[in-house]
Amino acid sequence: MDSIKVFAPATVANVACGYDVLGFALQEIGDELIIRKTSGPGLTITEIHGSDELSKDADQNVVTVATQDMLNALGKPGLGFEFELTKKVKPGSGLGSSASSSAAAVFGVNRLLDEPFTKKELVQFAMEGEKLASGVPHADNVAPSLLGGFTFIRSYNPLDVLQLDYPQELCATVVHPQIEIKTSDAKRMLKQQIELRDAIVQWGNLGGLIHGLSKGDFDLIGRSLNDVIAEPIRGILIPGFQEAKVRSKQNGALGCSISGSGPSIFALSRGMKKAQIVAETFRSLFEEIGLESYVHVSPINPKGAEVLK
Amino acid sequence: MDSIKVFAPATVANVACGYDVLGFALQEIGDELIIRKTSGPGLTITEIHGSDELSKDADQNVVTVATQDMLNALGKPGLGFEFELTKKVKPGSGLGSSASSSAAAVFGVNRLLDEPFTKKELVQFAMEGEKLASGVPHADNVAPSLLGGFTFIRSYNPLDVLQLDYPQELCATVVHPQIEIKTSDAKRMLKQQIELRDAIVQWGNLGGLIHGLSKGDFDLIGRSLNDVIAEPIRGILIPGFQEAKVRSKQNGALGCSISGSGPSIFALSRGMKKAQIVAETFRSLFEEIGLESYVHVSPINPKGAEVLK
Repeated sequence: MDSIKVFAPATVANVACGYDVLGFALQEIGDELIIRKTSGPGLTITEIHGSDELSKDADQNVVTVATQDMLNALGKPGLGFEFELTKKVKPGSGLGSSASSSAAAVFGVNRLLDEPFTKKELVQFAMEGEKLASGVPHADNVAPSLLGGFTFIRSYNPLDVLQLDYPQELCATVVHPQIEIKTSDAKRMLKQQIELRDAIVQWGNLGGLIHGLSKGDFDLIGRSLNDVIAEPIRGILIPGFQEAKVRSKQNGALGCSISGSGPSIFALSRGMKKAQIVAETFRSLFEEIGLESYVHVSPINPKGAEVLK
Repeated sequence: MDSIKVFAPATVANVACGYDVLGFALQEIGDELIIRKTSGPGLTITEIHGSDELSKDADQNVVTVATQDMLNALGKPGLGFEFELTKKVKPGSGLGSSASSSAAAVFGVNRLLDEPFTKKELVQFAMEGEKLASGVPHADNVAPSLLGGFTFIRSYNPLDVLQLDYPQELCATVVHPQIEIKTSDAKRMLKQQIELRDAIVQWGNLGGLIHGLSKGDFDLIGRSLNDVIAEPIRGILIPGFQEAKVRSKQNGALGCSISGSGPSIFALSRGMKKAQIVAETFRSLFEEIGLESYVHVSPINPKGAEVLK
């Protein structure tokens, strides 16, 4: 096999109470990448569809940076590949745009090389893309984009990625108000010291969420979807966020918070019907505010990165 | 029924990464309480066996304070009971001594009153005993003492107590070096502000532990039993703690940390045989150090507070 077309989904990181450790994958929305083996060495980005902002420079694009890290680890730094990237996750949306590209790259190249690495092992290479994109090699988007479902980073050093159980009925609604927030800026806004009592509230909710997901206890999932660390600060940057939270819950969502560092907002609901109602709630809210928005509804993506026919 | 004899077990709170939210119950070791209905009103402690330090004053003993809170909530503050307490959990041990007494009291009186409250509802009343004992109404000892198993406090306000799944093979070894640390002092030593990066490590481990317990993944349980918040500070107060940690793991323990605010140390192991080897390890270590110690080994107590024949 000399070429492959792959897809890696958009993702929601943090998931309210799981700052830097928790994330889940969406269906349908994600980046596509065509990868071709080349006879000579080197990594080249031939085309980027769907974004004018991203660099084709191999040192400045997450696709090539993540791939190079994997080739180095494999002891084959001199292999050659061409990449044709189709961005369907908008950079700066808070839906793991850079992660989708990084995940697609390492997943696709790994396939072309007959899978020297497991999907879980690919997470560390995709994280190099995240480091380029945001300055920090976080895994809470690349892990779910690669593996699908809900992923949990128990530890960054050494990297320890878990795949959580979750009820199949769970559906996500995400809304991307058309403003841009850079992850690097959003991370800088957070305080580096937090109150112990806030940390206790946060890990109480995180434990509750993990237990609720594993038990399929939707009420508990809803009670646990609270963030007292990042949301109080980041929420200020997102017009309409507080109202989106209130209205989505009034309209049946289990909970609602910021996707990654925003500005996208996510809600979780039991079943697609409720998730669609929440989507309507989001649409009409941002119409009222006069802010263009993009809304997506889907079940949780159980597969993660995959080969397209 | 006019009198009852009840038992409420000793407990291990925090469990490394679950500061203020996680705890589990031990078998065999715990407080016993004989409760008799009286014809007149008022709560009286008639005898305390096994401790000279505790007050019999109804305003100064956790047994009567917790009971009074329950009777107030029931709208029957004027009922009368006598209590004969046998302390088998030493105050200041870090094994939930006050919690065992509080839990036994509200559990027993609730039984004598034909159970107006569920065991879970009793947690809030037993917490009033904890408030008296340590200044803070924490629930991470009273919840497992009442309910058994591993309990998790998702939220204190409102109180939300979860019962976690765990593998039946899991066994605990606890060692109580004969020095005393007051919970109130130990709590004061902790910093009220913590580094965000430490909080992330902590909630990573907490999520890993909950997932590991529910899956019966012993290796993951072991990897997750780390505490970067309380242990680095409290461990200094306990002679031999670092060595106990190293040696218990060398001898097969999954993990080892401080029980509650110490000085007791706990280890978790897979099966009683390994837990017994860890017990020997602890015994010989404290012999070397020249510090008297009490060692207990048991499976996790699945029942919590119970009526004795």
